[in-house]
Amino acid sequence: MTHALLPSGFHDRLPPVADAAARLEARVLEAAHAHGYERVDPPLAEFEAALAHRLKATRAQDAVRFVDPVSQRTLAIRPDITAQVGRIAATRMGHHPRPVRLSYAGSVLRLRAGQLSPERERRQAGCELIGLDTVAAAREIVTVAVEALEAAGVTGISVDFTLPDLLGVLSAGPFPLGEASLDDLADRLDAKDAGGVAAIAPAYLPLIEAAGPFDAAHDRLCAFDAGGALTSRLDGLWKVADAVRGRVVLTLDPTERHGFEYQTWLGFSLFADGARGEIGRGGSYTIVHEDGSEEAAIGFSLYTDAIVAGGGEDARRRLFVPLGTDPALAARLRGEGWVTVAALDAGDTPEAQLCTHVLIDDGVRPL
Amino acid sequence: MTHALLPSGFHDRLPPVADAAARLEARVLEAAHAHGYERVDPPLAEFEAALAHRLKATRAQDAVRFVDPVSQRTLAIRPDITAQVGRIAATRMGHHPRPVRLSYAGSVLRLRAGQLSPERERRQAGCELIGLDTVAAAREIVTVAVEALEAAGVTGISVDFTLPDLLGVLSAGPFPLGEASLDDLADRLDAKDAGGVAAIAPAYLPLIEAAGPFDAAHDRLCAFDAGGALTSRLDGLWKVADAVRGRVVLTLDPTERHGFEYQTWLGFSLFADGARGEIGRGGSYTIVHEDGSEEAAIGFSLYTDAIVAGGGEDARRRLFVPLGTDPALAARLRGEGWVTVAALDAGDTPEAQLCTHVLIDDGVRPL
Repeated sequence: MTHALLPSGFHDRLPPVADAAARLEARVLEAAHAHGYERVDPPLAEFEAALAHRLKATRAQDAVRFVDPVSQRTLAIRPDITAQVGRIAATRMGHHPRPVRLSYAGSVLRLRAGQLSPERERRQAGCELIGLDTVAAAREIVTVAVEALEAAGVTGISVDFTLPDLLGVLSAGPFPLGEASLDDLADRLDAKDAGGVAAIAPAYLPLIEAAGPFDAAHDRLCAFDAGGALTSRLDGLWKVADAVRGRVVLTLDPTERHGFEYQTWLGFSLFADGARGEIGRGGSYTIVHEDGSEEAAIGFSLYTDAIVAGGGEDARRRLFVPLGTDPALAARLRGEGWVTVAALDAGDTPEAQLCTHVLIDDGVRPL
Repeated sequence: MTHALLPSGFHDRLPPVADAAARLEARVLEAAHAHGYERVDPPLAEFEAALAHRLKATRAQDAVRFVDPVSQRTLAIRPDITAQVGRIAATRMGHHPRPVRLSYAGSVLRLRAGQLSPERERRQAGCELIGLDTVAAAREIVTVAVEALEAAGVTGISVDFTLPDLLGVLSAGPFPLGEASLDDLADRLDAKDAGGVAAIAPAYLPLIEAAGPFDAAHDRLCAFDAGGALTSRLDGLWKVADAVRGRVVLTLDPTERHGFEYQTWLGFSLFADGARGEIGRGGSYTIVHEDGSEEAAIGFSLYTDAIVAGGGEDARRRLFVPLGTDPALAARLRGEGWVTVAALDAGDTPEAQLCTHVLIDDGVRPL
């Protein structure tokens, strides 16, 4: 082969990874279903204009676009599913009493890879709670995210909280800043650059230290919040973290904003032992309706490929069934949970078929 | 709303249909897994040239295409998954001993709707057995297709067999015909037009009657096959049908060719009670390797949306959990199989949340 089989950023999921990914998503959605989240499955392509209108974290120009020969309008392949779930909640399920609990799983496609990931196609699975972004709503969403990961066998889960509108609240209240300075300050805080922060607005310096293990960071943030501008957020955040305390590692990075630009009061990233980088994220946000009105929502997305890459493989157990075996016997063994691999000609061998067991004289023997 | 939410041919799957579709595919692939079929998950987009090379039943120009800014080559969104599974079997799994058993489920996209279906995005789930198209292989594939449908709760299954290369075999043997006449004859046979068939080649007239319930049609085809050109096919077909006899309704339409143009000796369509039109199809075919060599294969695809549309809805059972309920009690009830829907504020009601039961004094009561 002198050329790549697939374009960069696209890949085949082969056995046993593809099975593991499907199983993971099934368990995640089953755990969410037990909390009342029902699945929606929006289409791969939509009118570009309708999708762009709702896309926030992903730029519409990152989507694969094409002209629809039927409507003569531009369609886009979805670069994100959350925006589609928002569309469904705002339109087809607009009449449904709030809150609406929805779940989803599927592939998203981007024309160009992101800065942090070379992948252009990724699988996402998640939940959206539409109509509320209260502390009670956030407690439920964080609990469902953690339970979904636990149900999928993920261990060593960490939840890293952030307060996406923290700088906005502080600069609109006790520590005024111009718009330009706010962006600069956010950059310097992201970089943990104390000198830079001091040069822009020394009052914000304590925020650099208010990151790390949750309880200590929360304490420092409470001490910093002498003016009380953050009190309701800090109280709420504590209650949200309490919902999963003891089940996960809790951390706080109050000024982390990468990818949280469009979240409202709460954001969180999910990590797990063995997985490199984030395995998911979530937070509160706003849905815009057709008439311009806004609605609060909160949700999370899990990154199937990142989770599967960090997980162990289940051992394969495959039973080779020689030529001439009674089909009823093989059916009975499948009923007992065996994977049966039938010989289809005399040359088939258990080794070629990656079998771990073989049927000899109607008895199961390990190879 | 003055405009359609979605382009024609695309639709949202909403609750409870989206859950039913996901459950169906999970059960189908689980049944196939018990026979040793392991899942592959090829990407949504590929190099157009590589995909077109392997597409047969679907024309490459029906695919959504776009220029990849990374490679500057044309990519296509898959209009079919079977061709991708063939690519994987021929390349990345080319070294794997034959036969290779693979399964898949996913969405396919077409730029234009087909003649028979207005949908431009469809979900497909299926199995491919690569390396063999013998009677033993066909018996296994037909059995797995039927067991997968049964596992998904589909009832009243029919298998309608066809012999895609029948006219080719007969015209190359006992009843010679020119190429042009062969196409005309196939059209007239498809239309069950006795006058038309008689005008082209009267020797083929008995084929019109050799369709219908399997055993009688097979008998008529055997009587027609005086020359013996079809004997091995007819013997094989009988054995394949025998693999699922008694579990399904068996029919035979030996000259049906729509959509079977690229199948080799065997094709079949699947139907079920309550579903309009086909719910799947399968057959034997040929995979072309990079070096031009060919390999026999056989497989089937199920059409998730067609099956779900024909199925009944599972009744929803949702338990409303009032504000202030101990989370441990709700967790215990989920453990017992309940879907719990928590009140998140004082205004929530069981009715608004489509609940069938409510928790009162820690006891479950029907509404």
